[in-house]
Amino acid sequence: MQNTKLDFTISRLGECRFLSPMSTMHFADEEERVLYDNDPRVVARYLRAGGTPPSLEKAGPRKMIFFDPSDLRCGIVTCGGLCPGLNDVIRAIVMSLFYNYRVRSVYGFPYGYEGLSPRHNHHPVKLSVEMVAKIHEQGGTILGSSRGQQDVSEMVDTLVRMKIGILFIIGGDGTLRGGDAIAREVQRRGLEISVIGVPKTIDNDISFVERSFGFETAVSEAGKSILVAHAEATGARNGVGLVKLMGRESGFIAAFSALAYNDVNYCLVPEVAFTLERFLKRLEERLDKKGHAVVVVGEGAGQDLMEKTLERDPSGNIRLGDIGSFLRDRITAHFKNSGKEINLKYIDPSYTIRSVPANAHDSAYCLLLGQNAVHAGMAGRTNMVVVDWGIGFTHVPIPMAVSRRKRIDPDGWLWDAVLASTGQPREI
Amino acid sequence: MQNTKLDFTISRLGECRFLSPMSTMHFADEEERVLYDNDPRVVARYLRAGGTPPSLEKAGPRKMIFFDPSDLRCGIVTCGGLCPGLNDVIRAIVMSLFYNYRVRSVYGFPYGYEGLSPRHNHHPVKLSVEMVAKIHEQGGTILGSSRGQQDVSEMVDTLVRMKIGILFIIGGDGTLRGGDAIAREVQRRGLEISVIGVPKTIDNDISFVERSFGFETAVSEAGKSILVAHAEATGARNGVGLVKLMGRESGFIAAFSALAYNDVNYCLVPEVAFTLERFLKRLEERLDKKGHAVVVVGEGAGQDLMEKTLERDPSGNIRLGDIGSFLRDRITAHFKNSGKEINLKYIDPSYTIRSVPANAHDSAYCLLLGQNAVHAGMAGRTNMVVVDWGIGFTHVPIPMAVSRRKRIDPDGWLWDAVLASTGQPREI
Amino acid sequence: MQNTKLDFTISRLGECRFLSPMSTMHFADEEERVLYDNDPRVVARYLRAGGTPPSLEKAGPRKMIFFDPSDLRCGIVTCGGLCPGLNDVIRAIVMSLFYNYRVRSVYGFPYGYEGLSPRHNHHPVKLSVEMVAKIHEQGGTILGSSRGQQDVSEMVDTLVRMKIGILFIIGGDGTLRGGDAIAREVQRRGLEISVIGVPKTIDNDISFVERSFGFETAVSEAGKSILVAHAEATGARNGVGLVKLMGRESGFIAAFSALAYNDVNYCLVPEVAFTLERFLKRLEERLDKKGHAVVVVGEGAGQDLMEKTLERDPSGNIRLGDIGSFLRDRITAHFKNSGKEINLKYIDPSYTIRSVPANAHDSAYCLLLGQNAVHAGMAGRTNMVVVDWGIGFTHVPIPMAVSRRKRIDPDGWLWDAVLASTGQPREI
Amino acid sequence: MQNTKLDFTISRLGECRFLSPMSTMHFADEEERVLYDNDPRVVARYLRAGGTPPSLEKAGPRKMIFFDPSDLRCGIVTCGGLCPGLNDVIRAIVMSLFYNYRVRSVYGFPYGYEGLSPRHNHHPVKLSVEMVAKIHEQGGTILGSSRGQQDVSEMVDTLVRMKIGILFIIGGDGTLRGGDAIAREVQRRGLEISVIGVPKTIDNDISFVERSFGFETAVSEAGKSILVAHAEATGARNGVGLVKLMGRESGFIAAFSALAYNDVNYCLVPEVAFTLERFLKRLEERLDKKGHAVVVVGEGAGQDLMEKTLERDPSGNIRLGDIGSFLRDRITAHFKNSGKEINLKYIDPSYTIRSVPANAHDSAYCLLLGQNAVHAGMAGRTNMVVVDWGIGFTHVPIPMAVSRRKRIDPDGWLWDAVLASTGQPREI
Repeated sequence: MQNTKLDFTISRLGECRFLSPMSTMHFADEEERVLYDNDPRVVARYLRAGGTPPSLEKAGPRKMIFFDPSDLRCGIVTCGGLCPGLNDVIRAIVMSLFYNYRVRSVYGFPYGYEGLSPRHNHHPVKLSVEMVAKIHEQGGTILGSSRGQQDVSEMVDTLVRMKIGILFIIGGDGTLRGGDAIAREVQRRGLEISVIGVPKTIDNDISFVERSFGFETAVSEAGKSILVAHAEATGARNGVGLVKLMGRESGFIAAFSALAYNDVNYCLVPEVAFTLERFLKRLEERLDKKGHAVVVVGEGAGQDLMEKTLERDPSGNIRLGDIGSFLRDRITAHFKNSGKEINLKYIDPSYTIRSVPANAHDSAYCLLLGQNAVHAGMAGRTNMVVVDWGIGFTHVPIPMAVSRRKRIDPDGWLWDAVLASTGQPREI
Repeated sequence: MQNTKLDFTISRLGECRFLSPMSTMHFADEEERVLYDNDPRVVARYLRAGGTPPSLEKAGPRKMIFFDPSDLRCGIVTCGGLCPGLNDVIRAIVMSLFYNYRVRSVYGFPYGYEGLSPRHNHHPVKLSVEMVAKIHEQGGTILGSSRGQQDVSEMVDTLVRMKIGILFIIGGDGTLRGGDAIAREVQRRGLEISVIGVPKTIDNDISFVERSFGFETAVSEAGKSILVAHAEATGARNGVGLVKLMGRESGFIAAFSALAYNDVNYCLVPEVAFTLERFLKRLEERLDKKGHAVVVVGEGAGQDLMEKTLERDPSGNIRLGDIGSFLRDRITAHFKNSGKEINLKYIDPSYTIRSVPANAHDSAYCLLLGQNAVHAGMAGRTNMVVVDWGIGFTHVPIPMAVSRRKRIDPDGWLWDAVLASTGQPREI
Repeated sequence: MQNTKLDFTISRLGECRFLSPMSTMHFADEEERVLYDNDPRVVARYLRAGGTPPSLEKAGPRKMIFFDPSDLRCGIVTCGGLCPGLNDVIRAIVMSLFYNYRVRSVYGFPYGYEGLSPRHNHHPVKLSVEMVAKIHEQGGTILGSSRGQQDVSEMVDTLVRMKIGILFIIGGDGTLRGGDAIAREVQRRGLEISVIGVPKTIDNDISFVERSFGFETAVSEAGKSILVAHAEATGARNGVGLVKLMGRESGFIAAFSALAYNDVNYCLVPEVAFTLERFLKRLEERLDKKGHAVVVVGEGAGQDLMEKTLERDPSGNIRLGDIGSFLRDRITAHFKNSGKEINLKYIDPSYTIRSVPANAHDSAYCLLLGQNAVHAGMAGRTNMVVVDWGIGFTHVPIPMAVSRRKRIDPDGWLWDAVLASTGQPREI
Repeated sequence: MQNTKLDFTISRLGECRFLSPMSTMHFADEEERVLYDNDPRVVARYLRAGGTPPSLEKAGPRKMIFFDPSDLRCGIVTCGGLCPGLNDVIRAIVMSLFYNYRVRSVYGFPYGYEGLSPRHNHHPVKLSVEMVAKIHEQGGTILGSSRGQQDVSEMVDTLVRMKIGILFIIGGDGTLRGGDAIAREVQRRGLEISVIGVPKTIDNDISFVERSFGFETAVSEAGKSILVAHAEATGARNGVGLVKLMGRESGFIAAFSALAYNDVNYCLVPEVAFTLERFLKRLEERLDKKGHAVVVVGEGAGQDLMEKTLERDPSGNIRLGDIGSFLRDRITAHFKNSGKEINLKYIDPSYTIRSVPANAHDSAYCLLLGQNAVHAGMAGRTNMVVVDWGIGFTHVPIPMAVSRRKRIDPDGWLWDAVLASTGQPREI
């Protein structure tokens, strides 16, 4: 880790004055923390320097809570692109508020931050335990979603008007920044509103999150397209199956799909540059030798090979060049020029991958994320996210969570395993 | 049925002189036929006129066979686009030849009719029972496929050179016409080579075939895209999920998907014309009322709405206009003009649908098709296909099978059921 | 067919006096029938004898209907064991009544015929379109089920008290007999209550029904157990995977599973007797040669090998001996005696098979069954079932439908195909 | 952690004298370790006492290796019960030896340790890359498995005779103890044979392993039975769905299934005692209120309620009482006595759960386990297992890995989450 100073202090709304109604639960010890870095040499270095090695607050229910449950109203909002597990998290929050804390007033704000803005005239939906009981069996989000920000002050006005005590925000980078802005405005006005985030990123690219919810479901779905690409590639002379997978800046879906599904011959990710010439040469060699090839490309890969664009999507992300159709066109053109007839099939399963229901792992994981988000909010934490950093659930301040992206290390074990699995050369 | 004269006479290579080695099997009665039309009024009409109502020869093993199994060499070729079940049919043919008739020389010709043409320099693969034992667990075809015809005379030369007695062709309309040409050339030369077809059409559009192999798997896969389209449509304000499904001239996949998956709000098929104006109006009304919509469109629908093209694909089919992207663009443009922000997601699962392994129904069905194709060939039938016309397996002459396409009757029960299921108006 | 006299006349409550509200639908022609037997020789024989070949009334909407939709109240009841597709049929009936005929009063009677008996004190549930919209995504039946009869007179009293005009009964043999009794009592009292059945039999053993709803889903689920049995059998020295499948009197699930999943080495069904000695000898030979074996047995197979019982289940069926554990014990004992160590794994997936949601095929099929049941009831038909006899949907009188069971013909094509697929000898 | 002394020193065969042929790989730093306990207070305590906090050696490829790849012969053996992912691990080991180290001689010993014993007369199979390419698509193990030990000296003789340099053992507790014995005998004789274990436990109960391979697949499969149990329970009056899941001493499968599938009302695990009286009372209350219940029980739960047995299985484990049938019988008897008719369906999906192919997550995980096992063996490590302790892959000495079981902490977050999810009281 480059940063020498990592401050994981979690903001609190104030002192916890109420006894938790969860009389039979085991409460987290307020002092319990987990080391951020488990390399003994790093820890020793901190201690030699007289400092404290950075650590994170553990998640879990607290004996003393900040809000009076009988009086509390909560809100939930889902933002950004779809991701398997959104409904699971919504459901877990509603269930935990109701069954663990007897909170009966939970509102879903429709269509992301739009639902918090009076300009859009959406109406919050009161969520009951019955309403959410089965929603995790469906993909998507029952609340709807939208991209982009809304006026922070207006959103806080809505929270105040609706007497919301805890706002749960489920979303990615941009959404969490919006949550940070809301939390700051809340603090500026001296309000007692907690903002608790559950980081959503199908790309698995948020720092301090080992495996983001929905990611395993996504890899599993991606694999179906790889099997199809392989059937198409082997079903035709010089068949090429080209699959574009999600991954704007981090190629984790592409990389893990290549590990789980060995039919992949080339895996291209945003973190590892490649040249078109070398790639086409490798592909041609393989077709000559084997008669077919399967190529998987993360959407953010090879951006330097295409014309730059300055357009942005409503979330504020720069619109990526479409590497999938770019490669399709270039591969086709290349072999047309060289007089070799090939059969390329291009598959883009993005909507399918993000819209299926969560698998068993992600369902259980989302349940725990939602429960811990509720515990954090009830205990008066704010401007933080609940994450599992491979060491149990912990709290991380939103500003820290969005401070940088998690990416594949081209010099690390994961990329080495991908190269070993695909058999592709390091230089491509 | 309009045709008054339907001649279902099956061509034969000659007299059956060998006793079937299947001593314990039950043999089909040579006289057994099934009525083509089961309407008692039609049958009575034929009989009143002193004629015979048209009927089809029943499929099944015969006691006396034409070929000497110990001496026989067979060939298999798969042509055209992929379809679930191709490997199942290949496997069933090899297994039945080996276990039922002790035929040990079965060759797979690679890449469709190309494999029969000396120009392409492909090498036939000798197929053993061990090699094909597990192939049905994978999509695609282990033989590879290609589109388009090859020189008929050259292909027959190959069959002669390789001493092939029965050629099994698995393919669609164009492939079967090719098979007819081969059978005629064989007859012209006075050869004893049988040509037996297994009709392949994921669109389910071949006449005299009730449900073509792979069709049920296709509908099931199509349904996954409909669920995704629904999750996407409900996950965004004014969400529209648009799914393009296969169906060049017949919309059976779209229609049955709409029956099996009730999230479909509009089902557009080639057989039923629609105007863009009316469709856009209906869509807008629905978005105003419900906030989302799912549209399924068969690829051959709405061709009159687009610019005509005269291009043809290698199979000789006219290249269809791409109704999927056409609708996507028109819907987007329409709402941009009318100032309503919508969220359209366009899903084209075609490769996935055609490349998955067959489901249990199609696997069992392909097994029976393959076995009956072998029985027909061994009994010296030629220039025919094996079909299940809902009344058991029967033989149909290739020229009759390709004489017209099966299509949805806009005035029939199926389309009525689709309208009832989607709730869409008859006029759209 | 043995019976020379097959009377398929459908009972009617009276003259149809109301115009169907389905103005845009295409109505079935009242004269339209389909031949019961499509063998031209059979038809000719009838005609030569001056008779009419037996035929069935076609299903479908009628222009004139018996009931006044604005005034009609309908009931639905599900009886007997679970079967994939029950919820699909319930849903289709409610949807069709509402959308096609604007009938708004539909009641579900809970727990089978118990729900119609005042003794059990269950309360009928009013079913709305919203309530049933998603139920087909779950297995089981939302109405609950029970086995066994109730007092017919009391059930009719309930129908009268609740002013039910059409009672839809979804169930097997025993249930349909109960429906016949209700229809006779209704007629005796001169009431205008229609009784329409949808035959439910996961065993696929009802006459005049080509493939009963849920059957394909059942075969597909059964296949998962076969794959597991194969993994277990090959994973241990002298491994034997033994799978018991449903099929009290007809072994269709076992037979089609053996066709769809080629890992089956022995398929035992109720229709084909076998001796324990021969079977154990064959098994031993196979273990010596191949080291593993997969055996599939239909629950009604080999009943003559076990002690007879006279017990009956609440549906009135004789309790079958448990052939699965019987075989497990006998195989184990045999090899213990002969000193060969084997590893037998016994798998009974019955509950799983019957409780999963319907697959795409069965979903679409149940939709059409439900719609046609509604059309039949609205047109005043009674004491009949809706079936697909491979020739489109038709009406069959209940007494005829339950007059005999459909069974595998040991001398027919299906059993031959099973023998060819498993490689097992005819004599076992 | 109770133990104050945790020695994670890994045994080595000797000095690494060969340069790894993986010229482009990134090698693990020999000094790199990870802290075993990430609680900062624990670490501080060690340091205050002048000691070193316990840590584990990191897994990964080493620049210098012990064996000369050109000369090396390796063996693989799979022992104990089946588990999803066995074939994935076999495949990964063969692939990594071949592609990463150019080792061409890899032998599979059939049927567990039996394959290493001359008494059983099994013949080792030479494994090629082609042979293992697709095996991960099937459940079970292509090598076969067996339970129980063999004579250690004889097994080492076999290794010597076959000139095996690295023996990879994939198995549970007992298997690993056997591996420890082999490694000790190897050391006693002064041989250069490495023994590398990959811990297999579908119960997820091996210490220092966060999530054992196959566990996620198992939970996912278990969930299908829970859905079925729910359909059965709701489909009958007073329906009870009872599901027995694996878990001899640790109830992780039951617990995570209850988290992922919310239809579970009671989850019983070996770690948490319950009384029959209380449980039956709770169940009765629930049936009175809701009319149905789903109960999940881990196989080792409630052993104190049944007669003790002293029998052992061939692996040396005490035969557990069958809690599933015990509960089934007791529940049935209880309600028969109390005169309430219930409908209990008992489901035991154990064979299915353990014999399905690994899901995407487990496939990728097994690949990494296999690769790291190969790296460890090549670097001359021995008597150790490769594990992922949630902090990346590490090496753990076999004696330490089998020193105690991992179990659910009844006072920890997991059990609390289960209680929150099922709604069952802590005391049952």
